[in-house]
Amino acid sequence: MKVNVMSDILKANDLLAQDIRTMLEKKGIVSWNVMGSPGSGKTSVLERLIPMLRKTAEVAVIEGDLATSKDAERIAKTGVQSVQINTKGGCHLDAAMVRSALAKIDLEGLKALFIENVGNLVCPSEFSLGETGRIIVSSITEGDDKPEKYPSMFRTGDLVLLNKMDLITFTNFDPNAFKRGLKKVNPRAAVLPISASDGMGFSELLDWIAGRLEG
Amino acid sequence: MKVNVMSDILKANDLLAQDIRTMLEKKGIVSWNVMGSPGSGKTSVLERLIPMLRKTAEVAVIEGDLATSKDAERIAKTGVQSVQINTKGGCHLDAAMVRSALAKIDLEGLKALFIENVGNLVCPSEFSLGETGRIIVSSITEGDDKPEKYPSMFRTGDLVLLNKMDLITFTNFDPNAFKRGLKKVNPRAAVLPISASDGMGFSELLDWIAGRLEG
Repeated sequence: MKVNVMSDILKANDLLAQDIRTMLEKKGIVSWNVMGSPGSGKTSVLERLIPMLRKTAEVAVIEGDLATSKDAERIAKTGVQSVQINTKGGCHLDAAMVRSALAKIDLEGLKALFIENVGNLVCPSEFSLGETGRIIVSSITEGDDKPEKYPSMFRTGDLVLLNKMDLITFTNFDPNAFKRGLKKVNPRAAVLPISASDGMGFSELLDWIAGRLEG
Repeated sequence: MKVNVMSDILKANDLLAQDIRTMLEKKGIVSWNVMGSPGSGKTSVLERLIPMLRKTAEVAVIEGDLATSKDAERIAKTGVQSVQINTKGGCHLDAAMVRSALAKIDLEGLKALFIENVGNLVCPSEFSLGETGRIIVSSITEGDDKPEKYPSMFRTGDLVLLNKMDLITFTNFDPNAFKRGLKKVNPRAAVLPISASDGMGFSELLDWIAGRLEG
């Protein structure tokens, strides 16, 4: 019973996600589903990246949280369009929520859309939002065993950002152990060590994102 | 439809959890549902606490993860009984999983049982495991805005451990902002700053736990 109902929900979500994907592609908008643990630094990464990216491309952000509009307010300060979704307890965004949020965004001329999911290393991975690709933000303070312990999430990432690298000397995090674990569950993902605090790796991140936008 | 099915699942879980609670109480076992984000330090807290606690009380641990038996292996090194549950993608433990794990533990003489849930600040809060109380491990590297952003989780905690205090000087974490946020969603929770790395706060944590065990 439970499995059938979940399967129906996922099927309905996938159909709606496909509509969103087609619509965004027609407009030449590249979109990223940004996922990661609570406090891994998803919003901080966007706060630092967006001022660099918007010099050459129009950007908008959809922020997902159970409650509060704190993150959309932080993003709005960068000067781009920012819409908050509150899931009211739900552990992930879905395509219907994204469609509602898109109705509040002026899409004309937009080149990049970031959709920051609810902080959660499990549930968001199952629900397509119609995105072009997926970015997982994993902070080194979470430990180097996360890819193998949360394989359903790490399996789906195109880019894994190893955030909070400025703290690495104070932890026992082993980048090679992390990369070995990631390779087991997702050999194709790119990995980029960054720090949203001091800016380490952000020119590489900008290149990675900008190189995937449409002309 | 979705809501009704979820409500049935929760009801069935609650009945089973009540059976577990009654059974554990009869045996004089105090049990803790240990929750928190991935990498907040739940296992590290238990690794440091258990050698202190087991000097005066028999302890056992149930470890919940999507995949791997890494955490149960770490706990087994402390010399106590340790059972791993793999949820195979599931975002939380439930009472049926705990009942299966309890069948593998010798409960005679046991005084304290720790059940470490899947790393997740959303889903585990809804599912009772028959526990006596709930401990939330929140690491300061996750930021001080977490209680308000994940209210369903923080609302249910008896004790909130502010872990990784050894890193606080390298972050912008404000303990008072965290406590203000927590007070809004859960005024009754105790808060204890700790560091599983250097042992800060662990004698207070030991007192808190030991004072709640049965004679």
